[in-house]
Amino acid sequence: MDFHATEGWNRRELIRGTAMLGAGAMLMRPLPTLAADGPMAEIRKAAEAGKEASVQRLREWIALPSIAAENRNMPEGAAYMAELAKDAGFTNVEIVPTDGQPGVFGTIDVGAPRTLGIYFMYDVKQFDPAEWTSPPLEGKLVDKPGFGLSMVGRGAVNQKGPEATFLAALHAIRAVKAKLPVNIVLVCEGEEEIGSPHFRQIATRPNILAALRKCDGIFIPASWQDRNGNVAVNLGSKGVIELELVASGEKWGRGPKGDIHSSLKAMVDSPAWRLVAALNTLVTPDGNTPAIEGWFENVRPLTDREKSLIREAAKHLDEAQQKQMLGVQHWIDDLPYEDALIRLAQEPTVNIEGLVAGYTGPGGKTILPGRAVAKLDLRLVPDQTRAEAEKKLRAHLDKHGFSDVEMNVSGGYDPTETDENSRLIRAELATYKRLGVQANINARLAGSWPGATFTAPPVSIPAGHFGIGHGSGAHAPDEYYLIDSTNPKVAGIVDAAIGYAEFLYTLAAIR
Amino acid sequence: MDFHATEGWNRRELIRGTAMLGAGAMLMRPLPTLAADGPMAEIRKAAEAGKEASVQRLREWIALPSIAAENRNMPEGAAYMAELAKDAGFTNVEIVPTDGQPGVFGTIDVGAPRTLGIYFMYDVKQFDPAEWTSPPLEGKLVDKPGFGLSMVGRGAVNQKGPEATFLAALHAIRAVKAKLPVNIVLVCEGEEEIGSPHFRQIATRPNILAALRKCDGIFIPASWQDRNGNVAVNLGSKGVIELELVASGEKWGRGPKGDIHSSLKAMVDSPAWRLVAALNTLVTPDGNTPAIEGWFENVRPLTDREKSLIREAAKHLDEAQQKQMLGVQHWIDDLPYEDALIRLAQEPTVNIEGLVAGYTGPGGKTILPGRAVAKLDLRLVPDQTRAEAEKKLRAHLDKHGFSDVEMNVSGGYDPTETDENSRLIRAELATYKRLGVQANINARLAGSWPGATFTAPPVSIPAGHFGIGHGSGAHAPDEYYLIDSTNPKVAGIVDAAIGYAEFLYTLAAIR
Repeated sequence: MDFHATEGWNRRELIRGTAMLGAGAMLMRPLPTLAADGPMAEIRKAAEAGKEASVQRLREWIALPSIAAENRNMPEGAAYMAELAKDAGFTNVEIVPTDGQPGVFGTIDVGAPRTLGIYFMYDVKQFDPAEWTSPPLEGKLVDKPGFGLSMVGRGAVNQKGPEATFLAALHAIRAVKAKLPVNIVLVCEGEEEIGSPHFRQIATRPNILAALRKCDGIFIPASWQDRNGNVAVNLGSKGVIELELVASGEKWGRGPKGDIHSSLKAMVDSPAWRLVAALNTLVTPDGNTPAIEGWFENVRPLTDREKSLIREAAKHLDEAQQKQMLGVQHWIDDLPYEDALIRLAQEPTVNIEGLVAGYTGPGGKTILPGRAVAKLDLRLVPDQTRAEAEKKLRAHLDKHGFSDVEMNVSGGYDPTETDENSRLIRAELATYKRLGVQANINARLAGSWPGATFTAPPVSIPAGHFGIGHGSGAHAPDEYYLIDSTNPKVAGIVDAAIGYAEFLYTLAAIR
Repeated sequence: MDFHATEGWNRRELIRGTAMLGAGAMLMRPLPTLAADGPMAEIRKAAEAGKEASVQRLREWIALPSIAAENRNMPEGAAYMAELAKDAGFTNVEIVPTDGQPGVFGTIDVGAPRTLGIYFMYDVKQFDPAEWTSPPLEGKLVDKPGFGLSMVGRGAVNQKGPEATFLAALHAIRAVKAKLPVNIVLVCEGEEEIGSPHFRQIATRPNILAALRKCDGIFIPASWQDRNGNVAVNLGSKGVIELELVASGEKWGRGPKGDIHSSLKAMVDSPAWRLVAALNTLVTPDGNTPAIEGWFENVRPLTDREKSLIREAAKHLDEAQQKQMLGVQHWIDDLPYEDALIRLAQEPTVNIEGLVAGYTGPGGKTILPGRAVAKLDLRLVPDQTRAEAEKKLRAHLDKHGFSDVEMNVSGGYDPTETDENSRLIRAELATYKRLGVQANINARLAGSWPGATFTAPPVSIPAGHFGIGHGSGAHAPDEYYLIDSTNPKVAGIVDAAIGYAEFLYTLAAIR
């Protein structure tokens, strides 16, 4: 996933910080004993009895890493996912071919009036075992101070841990022979970590589309409780395009095709300087506002309601702690915190992820490089679309005379929005309330996820995130997922499974 | 050395091209039988008899790589250099301590009226054996089509080959018990490949300074004959500063200290964009002319004589061949070749050697980097100085509000100039004429070398390059030096040694 939980920072993480700013309050509300009575009491007993099996299920899944970027274990990962789904009670489970890696689809139809969709990914991010203190495929249990015993492994929190926990909830409900309160539709892809290039093919396959359109909403399981047990309910998220801008002698017809001796700069043009000039047209001089022609044409300003939700959420956040966590002294334009959070949700961005040209090692090397690359991500807000943004960026470069600068888009998502009055969001809020978990409404996640595939036509259903529990280190070494919590405000794997069960019952019961 | 011979290009070379544009004529003048009569006939016989010893001397020297950047074999390299000097007849040989790596100094005083200085370096460039087709320390003999049997090894042409060949000339002269026609002063450093940071300490040590000031001039041995046997006589060279510009959250006080998630761009400033903005102020929009405040204040325009020398040299160059070699279709501003060559000599440059920020691997990674680096080299022309340029660049950045952008200078040289009427240059031209080698006068080398240490006060003597023979691949894999020439226009190691002997006799005899 392309966003990070508030607690996602530790010293070993490359990516410090968070886009989950709705979650960070300092309230000291203890997690209550969950589901102590009624049908949930039986389910809890079953979840506790099945805990070792659930933990082992997660560990074995972690041992099979599917990595689309490396074309590693992809058919194996899809087949494994399908077996996991069948074991949890899904029927009609099918492996869904695409022009890329296959997806998995399955349903549990209990004839309930309501249907809930759930989105899984079976792929994980690349990893370098040398950077890990615990082997990334072994799923060892390690104590994480302030949280408790956690399983360490690639995919532990992103997303196998939360997914395995949802499956654990289904196993527990089956174990007590309770009837599911809602029908469930599972759609699963294996290319999330490369930007879901073929997920739309899965979601719009006729039988899957028909199943999705019956859903009251669809959610991605999430385990982002912070130290205080708080979570966020996201009403939408920004879109994103990831791309490379490439200036080269090859395409430009000026400058060298390869690297040449730097003394020749006095008679030969430089693709690296060309890239700098092209980049310089994309943003305002402070680097903070896109300057691409027509970029704001379809930008819908935040509503008063959205702004007031952000201001409300800000009250539960600790600015000083966040600044320290991020290593940041000032927000853009020295904005006060609330305004910075509004800016975070409101503004589209043009970000430089990386610059690569010529000699990149220690010291210098007297060359004039034949090629220079900027890796960018552009975050989009409603009502921008990815297609519109790509077209406008290309037109902007052309208009400024940079038609030779290549624009290689590698992936992206449209922005998403889900009505806070939708049954999905109301069920989330009601479930958190029932669980005694502080949930802050996040008007718009600044990160991005494939949710637009669901919220946009032809699927057009609410989409969001739900879950308690905790983990951290997505995309980083020593990724982990909390199994046995020592923090009374944060759910371990059993409580988190019960959280999903509560969600199913709440969705069935809510008005 | 920070320049490359015309023939320095082959498919395995990263750095394609040349700054030695004075050497590229297509004249088909055969190399005459050298020194067939007189004292030189005896010296030639001795050089031929000593050839195997000379080749072995070079091979053993290559086996001991001294690399200042890696602090590898530095005292050993200096001691080895001192032994080589003693073996060749130098007396009072001393290892010269500096604040960095030691130099070596020695003289041969035969009481001759004239004295010639020679500049050696005992260090070599870093290398990665994996990139070589022949082991870089073994000095294997490999056929180079169009040239002949060549020794492959790190330092083969830069500079141990030409240096060993000069030593071979001294050995040959000693072998026939001929009296040297001139006194010789040897100064040698071990830090050329890192920009000669302490070479001035060597050259201005009182006894060395006194010895140098007695010289008619000093030269660096060079083996840059092209396929047609042609060479260049350089009257000077540009200076250079190599540096990194670094924008960071750490120094800026804005943006993050480390890398954070890219979604935060909407509320956090970006050091990468700051670097782009700072870079953009340094050059004109086409990237071709420095725009640093006051940069041209001390730039002396080329004289009419210098321009006419360049136009003369251009007649012997093959524009189409050079463009093909460099992979270049157009010179800056679509200049005609002569004008492009004048621009090459005339203009100071600001070149981007490399850009490094954030994620540099394949694909993308959604981070906002805390640090961005541009590796630059700035070529300077007379009467700019390195000290002036550093000061002006810093002042320019400060004036434009980029006082936080760090400027880490790693090395550099002042520009150099030597009068074409100096005895050194006249002796070079006369020797080449005697050898039947086409020599084109190059008004100003666009590359850079430590020659300014000699031409500037307090040493203030002419300095240049001299030598026949051939080699290529300086700084690249499979660097080589020609031993047995199969090209009648290009000298092998024996003829090249005789070339140095001729030079000594010519310098002694010339008016």
